[in-house]
Amino acid sequence: MTKKILLDENDIPERWYNILPDMPAPPAPYLHPVTLQPMGPADLAPLFPQAIIAQEVSAEPWIEIPDQVREIYKIWRPTPVYRADRLEKALDTPAHIYFKYEGVSPAGSHKPNTAVAQAYYNAQEGVKRLTTETGAGQWGSALAFAGALFGLEVTVYMVKVSYEQKPYRRAMMETWGATVFASPTNLTNAGRGILKEDPDSPGSLGIAISEAVEDAATHDDAKYSLGSVVNHVLLHQTVMGLDAAEPAACPTLTRGVYAYDFGDAVGMGPVVKMFTLGHSFIPDRIHSGGLRYHGDAPSLCMLVDHKIVEPRAYKQNECFAEAVRFARCEGFLPAPESAHALRAVAQEAAAAREAGDKRVILFGLSGHGHFDMSAYDAYFAGKLEDIELSQSRIDAAIEELPRVPAMS
Amino acid sequence: MTKKILLDENDIPERWYNILPDMPAPPAPYLHPVTLQPMGPADLAPLFPQAIIAQEVSAEPWIEIPDQVREIYKIWRPTPVYRADRLEKALDTPAHIYFKYEGVSPAGSHKPNTAVAQAYYNAQEGVKRLTTETGAGQWGSALAFAGALFGLEVTVYMVKVSYEQKPYRRAMMETWGATVFASPTNLTNAGRGILKEDPDSPGSLGIAISEAVEDAATHDDAKYSLGSVVNHVLLHQTVMGLDAAEPAACPTLTRGVYAYDFGDAVGMGPVVKMFTLGHSFIPDRIHSGGLRYHGDAPSLCMLVDHKIVEPRAYKQNECFAEAVRFARCEGFLPAPESAHALRAVAQEAAAAREAGDKRVILFGLSGHGHFDMSAYDAYFAGKLEDIELSQSRIDAAIEELPRVPAMS
Repeated sequence: MTKKILLDENDIPERWYNILPDMPAPPAPYLHPVTLQPMGPADLAPLFPQAIIAQEVSAEPWIEIPDQVREIYKIWRPTPVYRADRLEKALDTPAHIYFKYEGVSPAGSHKPNTAVAQAYYNAQEGVKRLTTETGAGQWGSALAFAGALFGLEVTVYMVKVSYEQKPYRRAMMETWGATVFASPTNLTNAGRGILKEDPDSPGSLGIAISEAVEDAATHDDAKYSLGSVVNHVLLHQTVMGLDAAEPAACPTLTRGVYAYDFGDAVGMGPVVKMFTLGHSFIPDRIHSGGLRYHGDAPSLCMLVDHKIVEPRAYKQNECFAEAVRFARCEGFLPAPESAHALRAVAQEAAAAREAGDKRVILFGLSGHGHFDMSAYDAYFAGKLEDIELSQSRIDAAIEELPRVPAMS
Repeated sequence: MTKKILLDENDIPERWYNILPDMPAPPAPYLHPVTLQPMGPADLAPLFPQAIIAQEVSAEPWIEIPDQVREIYKIWRPTPVYRADRLEKALDTPAHIYFKYEGVSPAGSHKPNTAVAQAYYNAQEGVKRLTTETGAGQWGSALAFAGALFGLEVTVYMVKVSYEQKPYRRAMMETWGATVFASPTNLTNAGRGILKEDPDSPGSLGIAISEAVEDAATHDDAKYSLGSVVNHVLLHQTVMGLDAAEPAACPTLTRGVYAYDFGDAVGMGPVVKMFTLGHSFIPDRIHSGGLRYHGDAPSLCMLVDHKIVEPRAYKQNECFAEAVRFARCEGFLPAPESAHALRAVAQEAAAAREAGDKRVILFGLSGHGHFDMSAYDAYFAGKLEDIELSQSRIDAAIEELPRVPAMS
């Protein structure tokens, strides 16, 4: 039996797919965080290189992947698609389960797909240093790796709770040459403001974004780089695929409101229309640090709003239970973020058993959990809290959404 | 340019290559640890299943790989061979450097090549539980993974110094369902004996082997499994390749004596002819836990003795320097053990530059260093000691080699 499908290096796509022209409606424009008026490309210039800005707003359905980026993709791409036959047996399902495994990249997840592209375009335009945020550390690792390949300095603001949970992610980024700070820091106005209100702040992706944006905006030779949410990131990820399951502790797609909100905690970056829990929302200290963000990609949110994509939210322990089952069946040890997809797979597999049909389930296993073993330890010790967000916290967060003026 | 060579699943070998018939001389027989007389297959029966014993002494040049083992190999095999073009530039060498990367396996190294085969043969013969030792944790992880696939319990005696350095390796083994103890333990006579003499013993692979062997020998439903040294392990690894560079803190091949010695610390396992630093030798606390063993594979030792293989010994810091260079050039983050091969590559690359020739260098990158980040931390902080073994310690260790009677 064939266990995995693995394409040749020559099969790496030559173009990324841009979803914007195929969306059910034109994208809601990004708004300026101060004026709350639609932003033009020039407004993004302090943060991004020209090539990235052009991609962010492009209406072209296909965008060429530069040769130098494809050369580096060859280090780990094409990634394998596996038949999870042992998992099918363990789940007692007639469904056929397949997964695409992105954990084979040097950084351990799908994140280098866009990190390499962003580092390339920044290096092309003479940028010397990239600033960014990271939660679980997957994104920061990916950018540190990409920066090393293109000779760029990389400054990472790592959410403090993850910085403490995952010292080895920090060490990995440093090995590739990056500088890593626990966010909130005393190095930026944004960080100092947060620390003044709460010296023990665990941080959040929103806060770390504010710090990284401020750092880039106030230094001429630096630009900002991010690993999710915006169009050019999703564009680069089309080299691989997409997925959509989320934690009950941070249920943006399933319980958030579809409205304009700030992309960062302090209100320094663009204001975008998305499902949000409010920009000042600080998620509880769950172990899926990469999912502790108050919003989601605007294009994904529009697909959810149009009921083309169906989101689901899961609790920590049920996700870890599936991660352990998967590791014992298929070998690879999933990241806690990826385990959310596994929980959805188990639910679909049970539905297939009840319906008695051989439906095909394909999911993305976005990364390995080699730097998440303390979370596995906590799971086995029964110390993982099943946090579900209270409605009052959602109501309070939504109260402070920016009041956006009506647009023509 | 082609970055990597990746064969198809159908190209996974159908047979392992047995080096014994091609060796320059017949293998020296294993000796019984008490009588010091040559052991027959029956003497090994308390430790290994029949199929493994047959492979250990086989004179057949090729041995068939069972279909079930080949099916599981497909999870990560064939492994890629990479052209390290960025490393060539960083080393300023005309040499062409290639490496075969075994870190893509679920456990993160080449060790599952034999772990899966051993678990298979044990399960076939009705064994319920496997006992083993592990240093760095790569081998224990591999056997835990293999045990999960075949429904075998796995008990791992992990060398205490590595158990403390690498808690996440322990958690990884537990995720696959294994039970892990810090060795020396109070659970075996061997462990209790060592602890009585030195309650703070950091442990060694030799001691952990004694414990695992005793556990298997004293329980009917359990067998012993090991991840290096003996013929059947090397046989299974021929699916991939071989390498030979070693730490200056534990320089068996370069400074050991070629003589009969016990395979374990206490003298419970077979006595084998190999390059050894003495069975009671406790290596210093270097970070390459997988190399902290007093001897080497007898077949490799014979090749070194006949000058067919040339061994080299390196210090920790020079190996980590090459590991960091490699990570920044090629992306993958090497295990400290694998970094010894990188140091040898850098030496060969410099020799190629001096000679002005385009020699081809192929090396095995045996595993990733995701669970070794504390060692990288120590390297960057300048806290890694460059330990070189003193001649007096070697002389003392050799003094206590077993006095083997002359054989006809």
